[in-house]
Amino acid sequence: MTVKATVKAVIPFRPVNPKTRLSNLLSESEREEFTAAMLNDVVSALIEGGCSPVLLSTRPYTVSGAETVVMDLGLNEALNEYFSTLHEPVLLMMTDIALLNADAVRKMLSTDADIAIAPGRGGGTNSIFIKDPQKFRADFYGASFLDHLAVAGSFGKSVEVIDSFRLSTDIDEEEDLTEVLIHGGAKSRSKKYLEELGYSLSIEKGRVGVHRRSHK
Amino acid sequence: MTVKATVKAVIPFRPVNPKTRLSNLLSESEREEFTAAMLNDVVSALIEGGCSPVLLSTRPYTVSGAETVVMDLGLNEALNEYFSTLHEPVLLMMTDIALLNADAVRKMLSTDADIAIAPGRGGGTNSIFIKDPQKFRADFYGASFLDHLAVAGSFGKSVEVIDSFRLSTDIDEEEDLTEVLIHGGAKSRSKKYLEELGYSLSIEKGRVGVHRRSHK
Repeated sequence: MTVKATVKAVIPFRPVNPKTRLSNLLSESEREEFTAAMLNDVVSALIEGGCSPVLLSTRPYTVSGAETVVMDLGLNEALNEYFSTLHEPVLLMMTDIALLNADAVRKMLSTDADIAIAPGRGGGTNSIFIKDPQKFRADFYGASFLDHLAVAGSFGKSVEVIDSFRLSTDIDEEEDLTEVLIHGGAKSRSKKYLEELGYSLSIEKGRVGVHRRSHK
Repeated sequence: MTVKATVKAVIPFRPVNPKTRLSNLLSESEREEFTAAMLNDVVSALIEGGCSPVLLSTRPYTVSGAETVVMDLGLNEALNEYFSTLHEPVLLMMTDIALLNADAVRKMLSTDADIAIAPGRGGGTNSIFIKDPQKFRADFYGASFLDHLAVAGSFGKSVEVIDSFRLSTDIDEEEDLTEVLIHGGAKSRSKKYLEELGYSLSIEKGRVGVHRRSHK
């Protein structure tokens, strides 16, 4: 009997007052709900792509389809602590990769290299697949993409950079909501939530943005 | 004897006063030189990816490796006029896709669909591969990605959306220069030109941007 192994996928998560760069558009509770919707989309894509999601949360938190590990630590500290417990490959995926789909997950997992990295815009790192997490060290903040390439080099590991628009799109600012409305599919809970809040695409002077219907 | 056919790749080009959204950083002649560097990078990637580049320029202009067709028309008008002359597949590629590489070109060409589209950020269209260009109509400006999906649908054509960070990154604004400096490879003329002007990455308060060394 063959049992197809799933790959552990860890999602770092901070449930309190998330996505502060959207504060001009969304209230704190809306940002929490929107983040929960993105997390649900990420968990669904990870499962469809062949992973077992693990939420690495600063506080107790429950999301359908994932187990939760609570570590009240900073991002790098929590990840490095978690990696040190693993003796199997792990996929790290950020919570706010709202356009993630199973194909993008499989692109990460199918690398021949020791490590696959998907850059975000502005030098960030949105996902890393690490075959031997004992031989890695998370180094987020700043130009983390370049830092992670250097970390991989310091351990003598080969790296593949994964070329994906979906993986590169982390949702932080107003203009990122445009991407959710344009590229979120029929199953996207993130898109549905924004639409429920009254958001739609707007086009002004040839530039595409988002518009929120005023409250009744 | 087998001769491997190359695919025509058309690059719409407007040589005069390009990239005005970079005017706060680059003079007009610098913007022209930077655009020429990006064009050279795009032409090289297209050739390496199996294409014969055609520059569809509003004015006479010469770039090594491409033939030039001059049409002093708007973007949509020039493209649609050009498509009407073709009886073979064509790849449309924007000039400012400075991170283009041969793998991304091949992703476009290898589609099983009638049409492959690579979105840019903000609802734009950065590349289209059209197997039957007589049955297509360019509709740039505004949310052109959605418009082009609709055009394909109106002709009953199947569409594949190509998921590529490199193809999604058109260089229009200051923050886009960051991407050139981070992801431009050793052969990137765009990156080399920015470095010659004195640009380098800067990290302030954890955010990555660009900094220009002051003129001597």
